[in-house]
Amino acid sequence: MYKEIIDQAHERIKGYIHHTPVLTSSYIDELVGAMVYFKCENFQKMGAFKMRGATNAILQLDGVQKASGVITHSSGNMAQAVALAAKSLGVPAYIVMPENAPQVKKNAVKEYGGMITEVKSTIEAREAKTIEIIEKTKATFLHPSNDLQVIIGQGTAAKELLEDQPDLDYLLTPVGGGGLLAGTAMAGISYSDKVTVIAGEPSQADDAYRSIQKGEILKNKEVNTIADGLRTHLGDVNFPIIQKHVKRIILVEEETIISAMRLIWERMKIIVEPSSAVPFAALLIDKKSFTNKKIGIILSGGNVDVSNLPF
Amino acid sequence: MYKEIIDQAHERIKGYIHHTPVLTSSYIDELVGAMVYFKCENFQKMGAFKMRGATNAILQLDGVQKASGVITHSSGNMAQAVALAAKSLGVPAYIVMPENAPQVKKNAVKEYGGMITEVKSTIEAREAKTIEIIEKTKATFLHPSNDLQVIIGQGTAAKELLEDQPDLDYLLTPVGGGGLLAGTAMAGISYSDKVTVIAGEPSQADDAYRSIQKGEILKNKEVNTIADGLRTHLGDVNFPIIQKHVKRIILVEEETIISAMRLIWERMKIIVEPSSAVPFAALLIDKKSFTNKKIGIILSGGNVDVSNLPF
Repeated sequence: MYKEIIDQAHERIKGYIHHTPVLTSSYIDELVGAMVYFKCENFQKMGAFKMRGATNAILQLDGVQKASGVITHSSGNMAQAVALAAKSLGVPAYIVMPENAPQVKKNAVKEYGGMITEVKSTIEAREAKTIEIIEKTKATFLHPSNDLQVIIGQGTAAKELLEDQPDLDYLLTPVGGGGLLAGTAMAGISYSDKVTVIAGEPSQADDAYRSIQKGEILKNKEVNTIADGLRTHLGDVNFPIIQKHVKRIILVEEETIISAMRLIWERMKIIVEPSSAVPFAALLIDKKSFTNKKIGIILSGGNVDVSNLPF
Repeated sequence: MYKEIIDQAHERIKGYIHHTPVLTSSYIDELVGAMVYFKCENFQKMGAFKMRGATNAILQLDGVQKASGVITHSSGNMAQAVALAAKSLGVPAYIVMPENAPQVKKNAVKEYGGMITEVKSTIEAREAKTIEIIEKTKATFLHPSNDLQVIIGQGTAAKELLEDQPDLDYLLTPVGGGGLLAGTAMAGISYSDKVTVIAGEPSQADDAYRSIQKGEILKNKEVNTIADGLRTHLGDVNFPIIQKHVKRIILVEEETIISAMRLIWERMKIIVEPSSAVPFAALLIDKKSFTNKKIGIILSGGNVDVSNLPF
C-alpha cells in the first residue's frame, strides 16, 4: 500500500544520497546463531539515515517554499541532515540549536552552510525561536520524525536493504522519535510478504514501549540513556503506523547497548553511534527468538565524539 | 614479471580471504585535492592484510609440512593471521608471544586455535623459544615480512585494488617490516603501466627511509611510534624489491599520524589502526605532489584497543 510513494521518494532522493552497503560478520552470525545483515547508514552522507528524510521533504517543496528556506531545531543529526540536504539543493537552512550542543556538531552544521541560531537548552526556548524565525523568513519547518515526507524518506533505507536481501525474516531498527521505525514498517509491508519489523529501545527512554501498551503517546520523564538519538518521543503521524505494523519493541539496558556497540566496533571495524547499537543489543538479549533467521538491522548513524567513548 | 605468481597466489587464497571493499570520501577528496581510493584491509579476516600472506604461505606447504604445523613469533597481527589461516586450513599453529602482549591479542590468537607459548619480551627470547619448538615439532617458520610467499600474498591486496581502479597514478602503503610494501610494488608493476608506489613511514621508526638512502638494511635504535605495526625493519628478501620498485618513502610525525587516523575514523566511520593512517598522513603533508591525481591507499588493518585511543 505504501510501495508507490516509497518508490517515488527513492527515485527523487537517489542522486543526493548514498546507496549504503550491507555488511555481515561471520563472528556475529555464529554468536547470535542467525544471519545478520547490517545496513550501514553510518556511511550515509552526514553520517546518518536522517539525510534521506530531510532530502525527500525538501524536494517536495515548491519554488516559493524553497526560496524561503527550511528550518529545524535539533542538537543532533537532524540539524546536520537539514543543513546538508538544503545545501545540496540550494535552499537556505535555519537551524536552531541549544547553546550547549557539542561544538563538533555546531561546526558540522556551519560547514554544511546551515545558519545557526543558538538558544537556551529547553524545548520551549527552541520552539519559541523557531516560530520567531518562521514568522520572519516564511521558512518551512521540518520535523525530524513526525513529518510524513521525512518518514517516507527514512523508509528508503529499508527498501534498499530488502532489495539487496529480499528474504529477511526480521527487520530491526532503534526507536526514538519514531520516524525511522515508521518508515521501516511502511517499507517492510511494501517490499516483503514475510518480514516482521521490531524495534529496540533503551529501558531508560521506554516511551515507545509504554505508548504501544497504553494505546496513546506517552513521554519520557527521564532520559538517562547513552543513546542520545533516542531521547525523544513518538508523534501523531508516526504512532498509528507503528501501532499497526510494528510487531514488538524490545527494551535494552545501558550496559547491553554499550557492549553491543563495542562488539560492532571491534568485530566489524566500523564506527556506529550508541543509538545504532540498540537494535543489535535487542537481538543479543533475545537470541532464542531469532535462531537461524535472517535478520536485517539498520545501523542508523555513526556520529560520535571519538574523544568521549563509553569504553 | 611478477604477474603470474601473484595471479596464482590470488587464485590459491581467494576462498580463504575477503575481497575487501574500496571506499572513498568526497570530504577527503576535497581536502586533499585528489581522488583517494582506500582499500579496506581493516575489513579483512582477522582485521588485517596479513591474512593474505599467511594463507598463501601455508597453502604452499606439502602434506608432511602441513601435518607438522607452522610457527611464528609476533605480538601483533601476524600472530592472529597465522593462527586463523592455519585454523581454516586444518594446520597446527604454534605462536610465540611476548608475555606482555595485550590480553586482547592473546585472546584472539587462542580463539583462532593458535597454541601460544609466552616468553620474555626480547627478540632473543622469542627467537630462542621459536627454534626450540621447531626442533621439537618440525613446524615450518613463517616470517611476517621477509618470506617470498608471504610477500606475494600481501601483493594480492594491491592486485584487487588495481583491478577495481585500473588507472591509479599512485599507490601508498605503510612500511614496517616491508612485506606489504614489497608485495604492493610487485603488484604495481604487474597490473599497471603507470602507477608509482610510495610508502609512508613514521619519523620515529625511519629505518626503511635510511636503508634506502644508505643502500643497506639499517635498524631502528628507538621506535617511539604509535604505529605499533611499523616498529620492525626490512629483510634481505624484501629490501631489493623495495629498492628497485618503490619511488619514495615519506616520513611523518606522530601528531600527523594521529590526526590522519582521527580523520579516517570521523569522516569515513571506519576503524583503522595507527599504522594504517601512516600513508594517508604522508599524503596530507605533501598534498601538492598529488594534486588531481588518482591515489590508492592500502588501509592495512583495524586491530586497535578501543579502550586506549590516542584521542
